[in-house]
Amino acid sequence: MRGIHMIVTTRLSSSLRPILLDFVSICSPPRNFSIPRRLICAAATKANGGGGGGRSGSIVAPPLLNQDEDFQKIDVNPPKGTRDFPPEDMRLRNWLFNHFKEVSRLFGYEEVDFPVLETEALFIRKAGEEIRDQLYCFEDRGNRRVALRPELTPSLARLVIQKGKSVSLPLKWFAVGQCWRYERMTRGRRREHYQWNMDIIGVPQVTAEAELISSVVTFFKRIGITASDVGFKVSSRKVLQELLTKYGVPENLFGRVCIIIDKIEKIPIDEIKKELGFTGISEDAIEQLLHVLSVKSLDDLEDILGGAGEAIVDLKQLFSLAEKFGYSEWIQFDASVVRGLAYYTGIVFEGFDRKGKLRAICGGGRYDRLLSTYGGDDIPACGFGFGDAVIVELLKEKDLLPELGQEVENIVCALDKDLQGAAATVATALRDKGQTVDLVLESKPLKWVFKRAARVNARRLVLVGKTEWEDGSVNVKVLSSGEQFQVKLRDLE
Amino acid sequence: MRGIHMIVTTRLSSSLRPILLDFVSICSPPRNFSIPRRLICAAATKANGGGGGGRSGSIVAPPLLNQDEDFQKIDVNPPKGTRDFPPEDMRLRNWLFNHFKEVSRLFGYEEVDFPVLETEALFIRKAGEEIRDQLYCFEDRGNRRVALRPELTPSLARLVIQKGKSVSLPLKWFAVGQCWRYERMTRGRRREHYQWNMDIIGVPQVTAEAELISSVVTFFKRIGITASDVGFKVSSRKVLQELLTKYGVPENLFGRVCIIIDKIEKIPIDEIKKELGFTGISEDAIEQLLHVLSVKSLDDLEDILGGAGEAIVDLKQLFSLAEKFGYSEWIQFDASVVRGLAYYTGIVFEGFDRKGKLRAICGGGRYDRLLSTYGGDDIPACGFGFGDAVIVELLKEKDLLPELGQEVENIVCALDKDLQGAAATVATALRDKGQTVDLVLESKPLKWVFKRAARVNARRLVLVGKTEWEDGSVNVKVLSSGEQFQVKLRDLE
Repeated sequence: MRGIHMIVTTRLSSSLRPILLDFVSICSPPRNFSIPRRLICAAATKANGGGGGGRSGSIVAPPLLNQDEDFQKIDVNPPKGTRDFPPEDMRLRNWLFNHFKEVSRLFGYEEVDFPVLETEALFIRKAGEEIRDQLYCFEDRGNRRVALRPELTPSLARLVIQKGKSVSLPLKWFAVGQCWRYERMTRGRRREHYQWNMDIIGVPQVTAEAELISSVVTFFKRIGITASDVGFKVSSRKVLQELLTKYGVPENLFGRVCIIIDKIEKIPIDEIKKELGFTGISEDAIEQLLHVLSVKSLDDLEDILGGAGEAIVDLKQLFSLAEKFGYSEWIQFDASVVRGLAYYTGIVFEGFDRKGKLRAICGGGRYDRLLSTYGGDDIPACGFGFGDAVIVELLKEKDLLPELGQEVENIVCALDKDLQGAAATVATALRDKGQTVDLVLESKPLKWVFKRAARVNARRLVLVGKTEWEDGSVNVKVLSSGEQFQVKLRDLE
Repeated sequence: MRGIHMIVTTRLSSSLRPILLDFVSICSPPRNFSIPRRLICAAATKANGGGGGGRSGSIVAPPLLNQDEDFQKIDVNPPKGTRDFPPEDMRLRNWLFNHFKEVSRLFGYEEVDFPVLETEALFIRKAGEEIRDQLYCFEDRGNRRVALRPELTPSLARLVIQKGKSVSLPLKWFAVGQCWRYERMTRGRRREHYQWNMDIIGVPQVTAEAELISSVVTFFKRIGITASDVGFKVSSRKVLQELLTKYGVPENLFGRVCIIIDKIEKIPIDEIKKELGFTGISEDAIEQLLHVLSVKSLDDLEDILGGAGEAIVDLKQLFSLAEKFGYSEWIQFDASVVRGLAYYTGIVFEGFDRKGKLRAICGGGRYDRLLSTYGGDDIPACGFGFGDAVIVELLKEKDLLPELGQEVENIVCALDKDLQGAAATVATALRDKGQTVDLVLESKPLKWVFKRAARVNARRLVLVGKTEWEDGSVNVKVLSSGEQFQVKLRDLE
């Protein structure tokens, strides 16, 4: 990437003052006021103070700059933490998203989407989730608190409630959407990612979670990932809930406790204990809790909790169904998995790379009370989110990234400037037959055309020359074989 | 839509105070401070003032509410001016976008994308465009002025500059992306729409514009729109430029004049004259300008401007190429078309419905100086934008909207709760063979299953019953014919 910058000026012409002031009045004012960073607001303030008499920031109509004005260089890179998708990256994104979508359809799910900009309140929960402190939130011009969505599930819940009785349960929905979190840019994390979600609304049984994991396994298999590369850690929020009940911990602390425990591999255990202590849980209970979290076998868990509780019953059923779905070797019980979102209520799961190098690949679980907390009917639900970042790291590491080039069937070129219209006619004829055509729009030497044909992976080169065209024919060269022939345009397939 | 609301509370527990205050300190403060609208900031302020001792807004962990707290109802509709895409709307969106994408590929264009959140300065131009006053802009947590993109072209220009010499010209790129404008909600306009863009970077000749219009025509034809439904008005910014030069109007007023003239069908002609007068253009020039804008024939234009200017030469070539591409009947010259964006420099065009009921369907043109004003090399470029809103209105009016139902090949159902695992095995076997399967995840009566099969348009119903399954077989019912047979799972295709 080259460090090219855009230049704008910061003063304000008196004739444009009313427009800019109006513009500023509907922007929220910057908190730390420093002129070099905030172009328009800064410019407007100057004018407001009666000072500036220069021209407004012109980035388009020439002449662009007056030498006596303040200059302001602006980076033309995308905002920090965001990505452009040039063609090569877009091909990979399309490849990945197509697999997301094809697997979802294979499982009979319907695609949905929601606005990337949502009411902020939809994402505000009290449990101390990271998600809340990382919201891209602001006030719009109508004084509404809005936020770029950090996840898709709250919007899905909102839409289900809105649809109400007009939809028949169960709903099986999927979405692939961009999500935003303002995170510190450590660990190579970005501030936006795309997330594939699949959700089942209206099924209380564990068959739902079992099918969701089956779909992720199907996705992994399709892209060449095996059970020796990736596994799923599975547990249930009910494990913790039953323990907390046993120790008399109030139910309303449950969400916060889960959020703290989710950090168990990220911060020192003493910190975890301290944070749990803050919630008012006894030291005894904390020790017992942490002991149970280290349990990796369902039998051991049963010894602790007894066999009658819902946690054990659900988990046993899930493992039995995993066998029937055919993905037993992919999943394992791990009590430490709780997931970082407050709203889960039952089974939770997390896809991980077996080498332990990467963050969680995906995660999900049951959220039976989310809809009712939003004011909807009490409808059981579960789902997962699968980001587009970690999976690409994994594919890179396993050398499984596909090689995806541009693919064009024909490159059509006039041999003479006067024949550019004829070349257009040829291109149209081929496109009408469903053939992809890269039409050369300028007069270029043949050497250039061959180079371009190679770059776009063209199958055929169609040359429009004077003599042949008088006869209604063109020259066709098959680029893989070098085979060349003259053919009437109407016969060209 | 039902009016269902979410309930949250507005007080703050002392234990959560530090977290919330921290959260607030990175939100920009609301300008008009009213407690009912701004949940968290309001709550934090209370705490800050030493007042509140209640609990923070809980929308998840039960118990949800204490009776003695402030309640706050929040709408679960999407933010004003935005849309959800439930399955039926998503099918239409996918249908439309697939046509956008297939046509683009037919023409050999590569797909690209950019962040929906961009640096605000990328969109700030001085010409008095609507676009600037309608930006969804805010300051992010790192004190950067950012904006939800109102259009895609500036991001494309930015990416091309960033790529620099690493890409071979010409580039033929397309994108389908969401764009945001905070408009008044009159005329049924929304604040977001998706826009299909196709752009050619690096071709100075009119062959480029001619191909772009050809691709839009191809799109129209594919979805059933004809030349008697829709046309293109074509002109060139050079027409105005040559006139302004003739009248000694300074070149730097050009952008502003175009923006004013673009409003010619929206505001009274006297207003137009007044606004043009403000720019300093003489009354004589204004009258002449408005006269020329009413010209609808290229010959008449030539009489006024003479035949030697670039405007006439370009336009003549475009009409000649239109014939060769095969879309002459779709286009007409109309001097009043200038388009509302400041950056166009040459040919401009606009798709319109011939009944004159709708806003412009699409629009585009040449923008040869945009890259250099951003600090890049001087590279010729042109492109168009095609929104997803007006075209759907037009299709509705012409009764051309497709009927798109869900499509599932199989619905698989266990006849007995104990056979749900077996049904899972059957579903997996079918999915492994590439068959789409809606698996019934609960124990349901057959009547319910038939109803669901009809709703998802299933082709076959696969029933897993005890006797057959002991034999490794299932019952298959072809739903269109009623035909029914028993088949070994391994033979099921």
